[in-house]
Amino acid sequence: MPNFCMTLSYDGTRYNGWQRQGNTPDTVQGRLETALSALLGQPVEVAGSGRTDAGVHAMTYCCNFRTEHGIPSERLIPALNAHLPRDIAVFGCKEVPAAFHARYDCKGKEYVYRICNSRTRNPFWEGRALHYPYVIDVAYLNQQAQDFVGRHDFSAFCAAGGSVADKVRTVRAARVERKGEIVSFFVEADGFLYHMVRIMMGTLLSLEQGRLRSGAILVILEGRDRSGAGITAPAQGLYLNRVYY
Amino acid sequence: MPNFCMTLSYDGTRYNGWQRQGNTPDTVQGRLETALSALLGQPVEVAGSGRTDAGVHAMTYCCNFRTEHGIPSERLIPALNAHLPRDIAVFGCKEVPAAFHARYDCKGKEYVYRICNSRTRNPFWEGRALHYPYVIDVAYLNQQAQDFVGRHDFSAFCAAGGSVADKVRTVRAARVERKGEIVSFFVEADGFLYHMVRIMMGTLLSLEQGRLRSGAILVILEGRDRSGAGITAPAQGLYLNRVYY
Repeated sequence: MPNFCMTLSYDGTRYNGWQRQGNTPDTVQGRLETALSALLGQPVEVAGSGRTDAGVHAMTYCCNFRTEHGIPSERLIPALNAHLPRDIAVFGCKEVPAAFHARYDCKGKEYVYRICNSRTRNPFWEGRALHYPYVIDVAYLNQQAQDFVGRHDFSAFCAAGGSVADKVRTVRAARVERKGEIVSFFVEADGFLYHMVRIMMGTLLSLEQGRLRSGAILVILEGRDRSGAGITAPAQGLYLNRVYY
Repeated sequence: MPNFCMTLSYDGTRYNGWQRQGNTPDTVQGRLETALSALLGQPVEVAGSGRTDAGVHAMTYCCNFRTEHGIPSERLIPALNAHLPRDIAVFGCKEVPAAFHARYDCKGKEYVYRICNSRTRNPFWEGRALHYPYVIDVAYLNQQAQDFVGRHDFSAFCAAGGSVADKVRTVRAARVERKGEIVSFFVEADGFLYHMVRIMMGTLLSLEQGRLRSGAILVILEGRDRSGAGITAPAQGLYLNRVYY
């Protein structure tokens, strides 16, 4: 059966994350499958590149699905967008080899965590960035974030409740940058653990606040203890930015 | 009674514009007065710098109010933001001379109309820009927009139903620019008529589409006939950007 790879973006504010959960309709996967099934006139199941938490956004999310329906993929995009809610939009769809799987073939991802660093909250970043009204030394945080880079056991940066045994991941790149009042933490890795980016962000904020000392990230990684790291930053600032195959 | 000038921004998506209407709570003025009255423990009336339509946003809106309540203005801001919905935020408040009036003393305004010029719609600009998927020649539109500049009778760029007799306004500056997929039309004038910026934007789009010829704006201004101009572009792309005193 022909296999299609689809790319989409979504504002995750009102969804319970990507993954369909029983009959809860308010997941991105659920909405996408409903729209696709209605359009193709047959039940379609979509395989995503991974879960995202409730309230987390995606600039680029990747998934695949199989269908015998002969609709050309370039016509599918506008038709599907007409069926989807306004906070989800498909922007790419192409036929891929039968064996392709959006999750198993994923070679890495990039997330970005956004902070609105303004004295008062900004209505246009509401639900899309963490509001943080204090001074942020971006150069210092960027320097500290380099300690994440490399192959490490990220047990200290993983929330309890995950079912993954192997917590070794390779962070390929990390950077903190500012554009106006928006401070962004970009991190790319071969894979991420449950809440990993949000705990990384919380730890960077502890460094900013002086509650952790310069170099603390390497000590926390070594300790492999969740309680050594910072808080889990709220979901609203997190975006899945890129998926690599 | 001490007079205060307050600056705020708002995402107008879910409001029936700025101006309070009877008992409808869902106006920005209504929400602001409710929050301010609750905070100061006495009914407060706010005078705005002008109306904005339903769905129109403000980066900077300006208003004034009088109160005998002795709350220092720098403490008022965080307290008020805690009382306001998340899509409205106050960022400035200072005492001004007793005679100051946000509307009558306004010397000019700048609006910006934003277009999301991407092939498929972008969930993050939903309700905050007009989605326009066709090619836009920004240099051409910027050149055409210069015809708005100057002192003109803008009758052709005013919706029916306005009560203003004198339709002569001075446009001080106009420009069209692109940043990535966002095309912005900025226009500054000593005052604006009902739907003026939205009709200007619709007319620029008619020029882009070739339905009006280069130079048409001057002809339309001369004709003073609403039917000569383009459509009224939807409210969602419009932002009050600055207010001048």
